[in-house]
Amino acid sequence: AVAAPAIAQSSPDLKWRLTSSFPKSLDTLYGAAEVFAKAVADATDNKFQIQTFAAGEIVPGLQAADAVQNGTVEMAHTASYYYVGKDPTFSLFTAQPFGLNTRMQASWMAFGGGEQLANDFFKKYNFLAIPCGNTTCQMGGWFRKEIKTVEDLNGLKFRIAGYAGNIFSKLGAVPQQLAGGDIYPALEKGTIDAAEWVGPYDDEKLGFVKVAPFYYYPGWWEGGAMLHNFINLDKWNALPKNYQAIVRAASAQANDWMIAKYDNANPQAIKRLAAGGAQLRPFPQPVMEASYKATMDTYAETSGKNADFKKVVDSVIAYRGDSYQWWQVAELGFDAFMVRMRQRG
Amino acid sequence: AVAAPAIAQSSPDLKWRLTSSFPKSLDTLYGAAEVFAKAVADATDNKFQIQTFAAGEIVPGLQAADAVQNGTVEMAHTASYYYVGKDPTFSLFTAQPFGLNTRMQASWMAFGGGEQLANDFFKKYNFLAIPCGNTTCQMGGWFRKEIKTVEDLNGLKFRIAGYAGNIFSKLGAVPQQLAGGDIYPALEKGTIDAAEWVGPYDDEKLGFVKVAPFYYYPGWWEGGAMLHNFINLDKWNALPKNYQAIVRAASAQANDWMIAKYDNANPQAIKRLAAGGAQLRPFPQPVMEASYKATMDTYAETSGKNADFKKVVDSVIAYRGDSYQWWQVAELGFDAFMVRMRQRG
Repeated sequence: AVAAPAIAQSSPDLKWRLTSSFPKSLDTLYGAAEVFAKAVADATDNKFQIQTFAAGEIVPGLQAADAVQNGTVEMAHTASYYYVGKDPTFSLFTAQPFGLNTRMQASWMAFGGGEQLANDFFKKYNFLAIPCGNTTCQMGGWFRKEIKTVEDLNGLKFRIAGYAGNIFSKLGAVPQQLAGGDIYPALEKGTIDAAEWVGPYDDEKLGFVKVAPFYYYPGWWEGGAMLHNFINLDKWNALPKNYQAIVRAASAQANDWMIAKYDNANPQAIKRLAAGGAQLRPFPQPVMEASYKATMDTYAETSGKNADFKKVVDSVIAYRGDSYQWWQVAELGFDAFMVRMRQRG
Repeated sequence: AVAAPAIAQSSPDLKWRLTSSFPKSLDTLYGAAEVFAKAVADATDNKFQIQTFAAGEIVPGLQAADAVQNGTVEMAHTASYYYVGKDPTFSLFTAQPFGLNTRMQASWMAFGGGEQLANDFFKKYNFLAIPCGNTTCQMGGWFRKEIKTVEDLNGLKFRIAGYAGNIFSKLGAVPQQLAGGDIYPALEKGTIDAAEWVGPYDDEKLGFVKVAPFYYYPGWWEGGAMLHNFINLDKWNALPKNYQAIVRAASAQANDWMIAKYDNANPQAIKRLAAGGAQLRPFPQPVMEASYKATMDTYAETSGKNADFKKVVDSVIAYRGDSYQWWQVAELGFDAFMVRMRQRG
């Protein structure tokens, strides 16, 4: 074979399609894909162009992984836990109920074995995953009535999806699956009693405060929900090495952008929501503890049936223990003091 | 003028030198420069090569900014607060005593006006700054004797540099400037009473536990110490746009790498230090409060004399208030609960 000129090998003109699992209205979740694609284009003088599509433009948001697997698109920007129906192991690469916070999830992925576990697992589906964003710690959602005891969860029709729904079932609640646009009317009519979405900035747009004013925290099932770029393995392997490097670097840039944008926007949103009638409530301690126990029980049950899940959740639980032993020292010491001083004015 | 072929314009062979302010032994601080340089080389098929030099190889670590300003090197990986002697405003782009935590510093830089303020200021010195790493919340340092009251700070010879040294002076301590290698013998002989360095992973290497076993937290003067790439403005402006984009993306990749590496390494290091005799101590609440007051007084004094400092610190203080108002809800609620559950085993 005759080698092509080096320049042609390393910087070919290339067009990819990226399907996002998010609508454009979620400008931070969807926006990360745009930031990523622009970074790739800028780094390659527009030779490598990745066109981004919102959920539904090519495939529905929850079919993004399938579209990558079967090569309909080269890549997706999505949340692994949307595919919990294929295998519960998918849930753990986004967030784990009572698991890792935003920074811990990133360090577990990069240095704690997470990326290896993820890509060993995703190989079965013919894609690899590169971290690309995090919603930061989510809120617990909007409730029509206050939750004062564990018993108040009994029969509660709660819009919550995925693995966390199983845990709420164990607590007596009735998890509901509803698309974003259907939540408000269901809360208004009382067809459901509560709904979780993301955090202040995204929640504000859907106007839940008017129909379910009790805004609970923390969203213990998503202490930090990591997004990923899923990339078809055949397409990835065919990329020139420098384009692979650019995809990784651009993913990091979009990752930082998303986290910083949420950290910048949520403080203003929570102020507006509180001024607009949101009643902020921490989940009562007994509710948190019962939820923690239900979570650990659910992990044990799934682990008994699924070796992949067990391997990943065991890694997370060990990492969580070491990480929080350190976190309680400097990070929590600093944050807790700063919060106290702010409260004093 | 005849246009050069597009390919030559956008992907020229280029060699730059980067001076780090850190020795290779600080493998996370120094390592970020290596990760950055490798990402740039990988993204450009080795056409854009940035050779990294440890502190002292070209210029001493604390002269990195000067070397960038006068064009001795194209860029540096450094901490802005090392140059507080030129202008106290430099200190604020790394960390602010009782200021922003790691994530807040990133969001303030990206979306809260920090980057604009930084680069308006750095323009006077002929460089621009791109965030590239963070040490995460630092420890308060190693003390030969326990600190039980504010009075115990009186006359304390404390190895601490920069703006935080001014604050400790106000509290009655006597700040000492010592290079890393000189700290251990000074502590051993009792020439100094205490020393701060970074956090568990970096501190462990210097062996302070043997001579000053009381390990205090949090390092309230560095709730998150951001590192930057400083780049000579003439060199930056001469870069092809795609190389500028690659430098930005590679900086983000090294940023994530450093934070994740510290978050992964510190938990193991603090366990080893505790097993090796470190006595972990929180600064007593009255010491924290006196330090907070001394900090705010010092900010006011400097602001009275320096309009640049005032503009930046006012931005930080406003951002801090809003950020912690939100942080206390979901993030702190989640972290505090997780710490409690871990303590119970």
